[in-house]
Amino acid sequence: MPELRKEMLTGRWVIISIERSKRPDDFRMSETGEIKKETVTFCPFCSGNESKTPPEIYSIRENNSLPNQPGWKIRVVPNKFPALQPGPTPPKKTRGIFQWMEGIGVHEVIIETPEHDLEMSDLPLDHLAQIIQVYRLRTLSIEEQFQYKYVQIFKNKGKEAGASLSHPHSQIIATPIVPKRIKEEIYGAERLYRNHFRECAFCRMIKEEITSKERLVYQNEGFVVLAPYASRFPFEMAIFPLEHSAFFPDISDRSSFYLADALKQALSRLKYQLASPSYNLVFHQSPNPQLAEKAWPGIETYFHWHVEIMPILTKVAGFELGTGFYINPVPPEVAAEFLKKDLPA
Amino acid sequence: MPELRKEMLTGRWVIISIERSKRPDDFRMSETGEIKKETVTFCPFCSGNESKTPPEIYSIRENNSLPNQPGWKIRVVPNKFPALQPGPTPPKKTRGIFQWMEGIGVHEVIIETPEHDLEMSDLPLDHLAQIIQVYRLRTLSIEEQFQYKYVQIFKNKGKEAGASLSHPHSQIIATPIVPKRIKEEIYGAERLYRNHFRECAFCRMIKEEITSKERLVYQNEGFVVLAPYASRFPFEMAIFPLEHSAFFPDISDRSSFYLADALKQALSRLKYQLASPSYNLVFHQSPNPQLAEKAWPGIETYFHWHVEIMPILTKVAGFELGTGFYINPVPPEVAAEFLKKDLPA
Repeated sequence: MPELRKEMLTGRWVIISIERSKRPDDFRMSETGEIKKETVTFCPFCSGNESKTPPEIYSIRENNSLPNQPGWKIRVVPNKFPALQPGPTPPKKTRGIFQWMEGIGVHEVIIETPEHDLEMSDLPLDHLAQIIQVYRLRTLSIEEQFQYKYVQIFKNKGKEAGASLSHPHSQIIATPIVPKRIKEEIYGAERLYRNHFRECAFCRMIKEEITSKERLVYQNEGFVVLAPYASRFPFEMAIFPLEHSAFFPDISDRSSFYLADALKQALSRLKYQLASPSYNLVFHQSPNPQLAEKAWPGIETYFHWHVEIMPILTKVAGFELGTGFYINPVPPEVAAEFLKKDLPA
Repeated sequence: MPELRKEMLTGRWVIISIERSKRPDDFRMSETGEIKKETVTFCPFCSGNESKTPPEIYSIRENNSLPNQPGWKIRVVPNKFPALQPGPTPPKKTRGIFQWMEGIGVHEVIIETPEHDLEMSDLPLDHLAQIIQVYRLRTLSIEEQFQYKYVQIFKNKGKEAGASLSHPHSQIIATPIVPKRIKEEIYGAERLYRNHFRECAFCRMIKEEITSKERLVYQNEGFVVLAPYASRFPFEMAIFPLEHSAFFPDISDRSSFYLADALKQALSRLKYQLASPSYNLVFHQSPNPQLAEKAWPGIETYFHWHVEIMPILTKVAGFELGTGFYINPVPPEVAAEFLKKDLPA
């Protein structure tokens, strides 16, 4: 019998469709486990091609190297084809009965390494921790401007995930509106705090998941990697800081290192256990604190930032688009069991 | 400058990213306009293979032909790999802090024609009108059972849209819960009715769109085809009955014929102007009236059933998954202008 599960924060239901279930191995992207390399003729993100991107906003580079020259380790540039463009707070306007506003915002690219053929999970821990610190610094810098209400950090890996370039990179889009999905999580967390748990719903859930172990993929001193109870996608994972925190930029250097380890573990499991599927990775954090503390008093007590990792192994189809209900053919308990197997040494 | 637009019912914002815009022709699936045929070795939906599906639930067939034998024109069968299974109202259960219920529901397949190589837009109007009447009859029959709260009619056309078989077919999934997306539309419509328009928000929008013509793709005596103001996807279309109606099964035979014409026009435009992209098509209708009239008093005055058509021409990526914000590189005004061009005679 298939099962319906409720995601407690957003109230979204998911069909865990056990009857349709394939064995986890059936989802491997290649039977031999070998990972195909793409051949690329020209890449604007490679070292030496710095002039092919807009001028850099920030970089971590060798002491004597110059901006927009080789010698960098991590490089932040404006997206050459931005979805949104910088500007002052846009007023809400109307067009007949419809509302609109100018597309003000920020769209940046974080080039994670000069080496084209690596992927995020291949990077050493200290390099990954530096990427996380770059996310942190960019978030803080963008949030100084009050018109940017929410900073979305995300990564599209692989063509199926929407990546147009294969060079390792992540992106930041800051919007002049708090997105619906974030508002839903905030309202859900507030309601659960007030009516049910009298503590952060995320903290409560993390404790239960660590005790039950059923959906636990990995844990270190600072973070836990889970297959979420109401996973929408096969082998979906989420990473939560063990210590309660609503604001991702409050992350310490030490915690960045633990997050780097959790990320590396999660992404390596996709790479080795499932032969490198495409994936989307998103951070969910509090909106700009200048806004958040006024709009949602107490948000620091009931919201808990986290990372979601969504491998692309099935297609989202009409039923999902029509209803918002997802059908997941791999129960998260099966996914966790499969993912947590030891990695090759 | 890109533009942010608000979908007035659900409050979802969309980025209309004009800077990224390609010309509409750039979205054609093939440069020559030629449409590739797949070669298929065996198809369980073809005439003669009736024994390869579960026994039929309903069919329209020649007078003397027997069930589960050739001679049918439209055939409804249970999905062989159902996402949900029939049963009585499932109680909500808990598992620690989490909620779940048994996956009770209905999952049917409507095989639209015995001819493998046709597609929905190729069918004659009277055949299409009969398919619509089949959707109607199946909805009515399923809604007799009170445990099925919502009947989702949908169609996945093409691999990119999640179709596993290329033979023309649509599907019905009935759920024991009213999906989030439907609830959002209902609450939005109720709020707009009460606070703003004092009439059905859909009716109001349809009138405005017919007057402005900017996003109008096609219109006949009974229906209008629009490129929605806050379209999430390039060349997205929606079909609305001109006469107010919350309950799709109230559709008359005469109206079925007009809907058939509107559907054929919309789908033919995708086929000929964009060289047959994959698409998802969904009906949005009122929940089971046994429930709806109690749960949402007055729903018959403020909700308005409709059809959404979503071509698959771009990938949904991390930003969309993280925020619920969509980025659409084709303004709906450009899409409407392009789609409404005359079809080949």
